[in-house]
Amino acid sequence: MRLRNIPGSVEALHRSGYVIDEPKEMKGRWKEVFGNDHPIRLEIGMGKGQFIIEMADRNPDVNFIGIEMYSSVLVRAVQKLSGGRHVWEDSDEDAPETADASETEEKLAVANLRLLRLDARELAEVFAPGEVEKIYLNFSDPWPKDRHAKRRLPSKEFLALYDKVLLPEGKVEFKTDNRDLFDFALEQLPLAGWKSEIVTFDLHADPVLSEGNVMTEYEQKFSAKGNPICKYVISR
Amino acid sequence: MRLRNIPGSVEALHRSGYVIDEPKEMKGRWKEVFGNDHPIRLEIGMGKGQFIIEMADRNPDVNFIGIEMYSSVLVRAVQKLSGGRHVWEDSDEDAPETADASETEEKLAVANLRLLRLDARELAEVFAPGEVEKIYLNFSDPWPKDRHAKRRLPSKEFLALYDKVLLPEGKVEFKTDNRDLFDFALEQLPLAGWKSEIVTFDLHADPVLSEGNVMTEYEQKFSAKGNPICKYVISR
Repeated sequence: MRLRNIPGSVEALHRSGYVIDEPKEMKGRWKEVFGNDHPIRLEIGMGKGQFIIEMADRNPDVNFIGIEMYSSVLVRAVQKLSGGRHVWEDSDEDAPETADASETEEKLAVANLRLLRLDARELAEVFAPGEVEKIYLNFSDPWPKDRHAKRRLPSKEFLALYDKVLLPEGKVEFKTDNRDLFDFALEQLPLAGWKSEIVTFDLHADPVLSEGNVMTEYEQKFSAKGNPICKYVISR
Repeated sequence: MRLRNIPGSVEALHRSGYVIDEPKEMKGRWKEVFGNDHPIRLEIGMGKGQFIIEMADRNPDVNFIGIEMYSSVLVRAVQKLSGGRHVWEDSDEDAPETADASETEEKLAVANLRLLRLDARELAEVFAPGEVEKIYLNFSDPWPKDRHAKRRLPSKEFLALYDKVLLPEGKVEFKTDNRDLFDFALEQLPLAGWKSEIVTFDLHADPVLSEGNVMTEYEQKFSAKGNPICKYVISR
């Protein structure tokens, strides 16, 4: 995704009821944020949020938290969520100088969704052991250079981190069209002591696995080009 | 491998001390065949036998059984084992009319190796539950048509069969340069309830995993062409 400075983006995030500004203060207390004890699922690298917003819509009894490293990306999801009132165009000039989000803060249209601007390496500072039921990784950055392997979200280093916050029966679901990254992800599993529950190298060709599949922006784009989508579901 | 009728090949196998003619009669009694209770490992689809012969040489405290569906292929391994005394050339005419293998029968040069002409689907009729410690699959036939998926040796159907003869801690090791077959093999694991212990998409590039690697004929040929060799080690 092309990153741009969107003027006022940080302010927009602060105004949004969806974005939790100090997530580390909620460690171990996320059920208070949602006001219920429904399971909590994360998407790390949520991008513009199409996947997690639709997942939250479809699964009202599950709480979703989208994590994104870049404010300039996260603000797009906030725009999407704010719907009719805060539709900003793609160009920078159209970002509104001010916006009244007080209503949004009081009652969010998607009550089971929150967003965090967070570096995923800080995950264990934000979630207590067993606080997360599932983690979604969608079309993660491949970091193709060998020396950057640790930065890849399905690396054994990140799996060890997910281990710290997931329930014992917790799962990680990963989708990508990048074969090299998927190969790497499969190689990492035994090194990290995880096992696959589902593996497919062509998700959309599998009638069972593709049923109910919620597509990300990238997934729509790349599968339309004919790229097969790889997916795994793993557990410890 | 190109299959040819080698005149006298069945007779040659019978004469060989390495080939067990009625393997089903040995079910549950394989330690009697070897005269010890060393662990037993199989290679299914051993071809000309380079891998299993070298493995047997390197590991005198392990018993190896090579399984091959075709007599005409198996005879090549017997030729290789018979060494100086029974070196037959590749052409059919050179197969000897008669040969005295009585010495071989009495004392085999590779004492910890036996060979079976067997359809792998009969595995559970030949080995008792827990009688096998490890199964090697090397460069197995990819059976590329979908309707032949069950014939692929890493299919879930075959994994269920291996389950019947392997020790609880038993493992299957699979090597191939065929990416489609390897992808299929990885997809089958969770469906059969197996988990990976090692996965690599480029065995020879991994200094740890390639150490001590015994190459098959195909592996030498294809890796020399630059094809990466995929390998997994799996367990239940």
